[in-house]
Amino acid sequence: MKNMNEIPYKIYLTEQEMPKEWYNVRADMKKKPAPLLNPGTGQPMTAEELNGVFCEELVKQELNNDDRYIEIPKKIRDFYKMYRPSPLVRAYCLEEKLGTPAKIYYKYEGNNTSGSHKLNSAIAQAFYAKDQGLKGVTTETGAGQWGTALSMACAYLDLDCKVYMVKVSYEQKPFRREVMRTYGASVTPSPSDTTAVGRKILAEHPGTNGSLGCAISEAVETAVSNDGYRYVLGSVLNQVLLHQSIIGQEAKIAMDKYGIKPDVIIGCAGGGSNLGGLIGPFMGEKLRGEADYQFIAVEPASCPSFTRGKYAYDFADTGQVCPLAKMYTLGADFMPSPNHAGGLRYHGMSPVLSELYDQGMMEARAVEQTSVFEAITEFARVEGILPAPESGHAIKVAIDEAKKCKETGEEKTILFGLTGTGYFDMYAYAAFNDGKMTDYIPTDEELEASFAKLPKIGE
Amino acid sequence: MKNMNEIPYKIYLTEQEMPKEWYNVRADMKKKPAPLLNPGTGQPMTAEELNGVFCEELVKQELNNDDRYIEIPKKIRDFYKMYRPSPLVRAYCLEEKLGTPAKIYYKYEGNNTSGSHKLNSAIAQAFYAKDQGLKGVTTETGAGQWGTALSMACAYLDLDCKVYMVKVSYEQKPFRREVMRTYGASVTPSPSDTTAVGRKILAEHPGTNGSLGCAISEAVETAVSNDGYRYVLGSVLNQVLLHQSIIGQEAKIAMDKYGIKPDVIIGCAGGGSNLGGLIGPFMGEKLRGEADYQFIAVEPASCPSFTRGKYAYDFADTGQVCPLAKMYTLGADFMPSPNHAGGLRYHGMSPVLSELYDQGMMEARAVEQTSVFEAITEFARVEGILPAPESGHAIKVAIDEAKKCKETGEEKTILFGLTGTGYFDMYAYAAFNDGKMTDYIPTDEELEASFAKLPKIGE
Repeated sequence: MKNMNEIPYKIYLTEQEMPKEWYNVRADMKKKPAPLLNPGTGQPMTAEELNGVFCEELVKQELNNDDRYIEIPKKIRDFYKMYRPSPLVRAYCLEEKLGTPAKIYYKYEGNNTSGSHKLNSAIAQAFYAKDQGLKGVTTETGAGQWGTALSMACAYLDLDCKVYMVKVSYEQKPFRREVMRTYGASVTPSPSDTTAVGRKILAEHPGTNGSLGCAISEAVETAVSNDGYRYVLGSVLNQVLLHQSIIGQEAKIAMDKYGIKPDVIIGCAGGGSNLGGLIGPFMGEKLRGEADYQFIAVEPASCPSFTRGKYAYDFADTGQVCPLAKMYTLGADFMPSPNHAGGLRYHGMSPVLSELYDQGMMEARAVEQTSVFEAITEFARVEGILPAPESGHAIKVAIDEAKKCKETGEEKTILFGLTGTGYFDMYAYAAFNDGKMTDYIPTDEELEASFAKLPKIGE
Repeated sequence: MKNMNEIPYKIYLTEQEMPKEWYNVRADMKKKPAPLLNPGTGQPMTAEELNGVFCEELVKQELNNDDRYIEIPKKIRDFYKMYRPSPLVRAYCLEEKLGTPAKIYYKYEGNNTSGSHKLNSAIAQAFYAKDQGLKGVTTETGAGQWGTALSMACAYLDLDCKVYMVKVSYEQKPFRREVMRTYGASVTPSPSDTTAVGRKILAEHPGTNGSLGCAISEAVETAVSNDGYRYVLGSVLNQVLLHQSIIGQEAKIAMDKYGIKPDVIIGCAGGGSNLGGLIGPFMGEKLRGEADYQFIAVEPASCPSFTRGKYAYDFADTGQVCPLAKMYTLGADFMPSPNHAGGLRYHGMSPVLSELYDQGMMEARAVEQTSVFEAITEFARVEGILPAPESGHAIKVAIDEAKKCKETGEEKTILFGLTGTGYFDMYAYAAFNDGKMTDYIPTDEELEASFAKLPKIGE
């Protein structure tokens, strides 16, 4: 193997080297992301309006476009030490298998029980809720990655955690549900009779499987109508990207330590929490004109918000209870095909990343899921990690780029984000192993019909 | 939290500090473990006899009672770098939760895709098979931890891997099966029509659920009757304890680096692979009179080979195709209650550990599974790791010892082995969460009936 004595297989920072501040990319953006709008008035949401739903300190972070660095409270840094620093891994075995001159690195966020990077923001949001003297938080979860992370964080801080889990996942994927219960969370299949919106939907659609949009509505209603509760969200929001900047900062410190400069940085993109966190500090350098990098967002061809969506104001949730956000969107009613295995099912995209994409600061690619599973199977066999299908989108494009280098002879340095593990996605792996996995790409007509329902706000 | 600035939350060795040799505890034992016997002749198994079933280099290791250190081949050390060194974690959060003056450390082996320490020996056995020019290896697996580890190792070395999986697990626990298939292994539900012994059992017991004993017999038959194949095993054998010594050595190097000396060392015990590996280098010091430690083996009350078994020669497998081993045993026909959630279901115990236990060098405790699940739930909520039920046995006793220190005021240093993660054990967690978990302890009459069938060999 190449250079194994120079650059270790895994680079771990010491606890002293871990960042003490989050990095806020908005501070380095000349044109800021568009503000959230009140759907009733069409005016930017104020802190007062947001404080009813979110924790106060998090609202400040959400609206803070100016401070480049925001201190990480010590209690959160102590929690981070339970599973961070996460390793920056040199993919020597994959490079050898591909026979590529490229140098491939990945920042691996799967080494914690929640199984993904979601914990980075979950502990921050839970901490501020506790610090505000709240009793608990509410949230929704689909397959359960975010709900698991939040349950872990709440257990650590002794905070109540109410999770609305899409009913079909609650019933068909009981394992993450049990992880959440083990961490003391109450998990309610949605729609439920515990909320007005849930009862209404149950009355109109008896026997429904539920949807993420409905679960969001129930979680928000529960937060707003219970004293001492607030609603928390695992992606899309500015505050989440801020917390996730720990990923990119650790990666950058580790690379700087060994004099490594990535040429290409690749992340999977659903709501944008991992991608935004990984590329943030590097994007800051690019925005300040200090360095140049190629950034690639990878999304599923079945839910292609960057590559085929519109940049427009849209509802953040199907239930239309949340503020409007300007983002690349497929329309709030867009539902990816049910045969789509990975997460990355959100109809929109982080407003920060949407604005950066619109400014031409990054690229995006859409990939089909069978090609993703081919890539993760190849990766798993040589690198010894069983990736989540979400992470597989980044792996697929990293392998594509490394193969290009083999053709051209370029010795590019590639960095990608490996967001989590696939232990709870074995049904999808089984479908692939059995040759039963199929792809779905929405038609132009489907997307046009969805775009026609976008609210007529903003430009 | 105590001392967090002195001793880090996690101690990682550098790759340079990782051991380059395995430690062979037998070299330091004055009275050696009893040899394996040929069940036909009653004589010690020779290398020639063993070479038909096992790889040659592994047979040498199995019979080597003299060399204290055996070099780890470079290719295995490179593979170890994919997931090792494993962290030695200071359980600051658990200590705080318990309010104990004890200092608790655990060596965490769950940070690899196979989810347990089994990979340490799987890669070694696969390497020697490849090095001997073999085409592949065969093995059996129950719930699938060992099969998963072996599949990963074989994928890395491009070696064929045939796994016989107990039929009921194959059908009811499809997830590990799919992990193995993703790593390219062929997984056959046992009993199967691919072997003579399988066909015989299917004819006699149509619709049987299968058993580990039957799966072993099929795996051995397949190895012996196919050119270029050998059989491999994940526990009990001397060679497996040798490979697993990497656990204890890393723990000892990390502790020495910070001047930490454990008073009590605790490990869960099924066949003994983790326990033997963890305590090995410390036991060496004790055997040489250089240091003293308290060692505690923890086993399930439902399968109590140390605490209620007999030290005698017994068949290593239910099918009686393997050599006889002298060990603490419940009798080769003993079957733990099906409601028993964890692994640690083997009727016997590593001959090395059995001999050390017989010499009074270590203690053993049996614990019931509801108390294990109470302990792992408490542990998970503060330490952020979801333990395997097997590992939970060690956690339970570590917590008991820490609570004793709270009463006595003793500032003991406790080290335990956390062998793996519980992601594929969520059915058991669900039973506990739902209050439906029960305990089972075999009666004296059951054990006496089982002991009556022990072969009349040896003393």
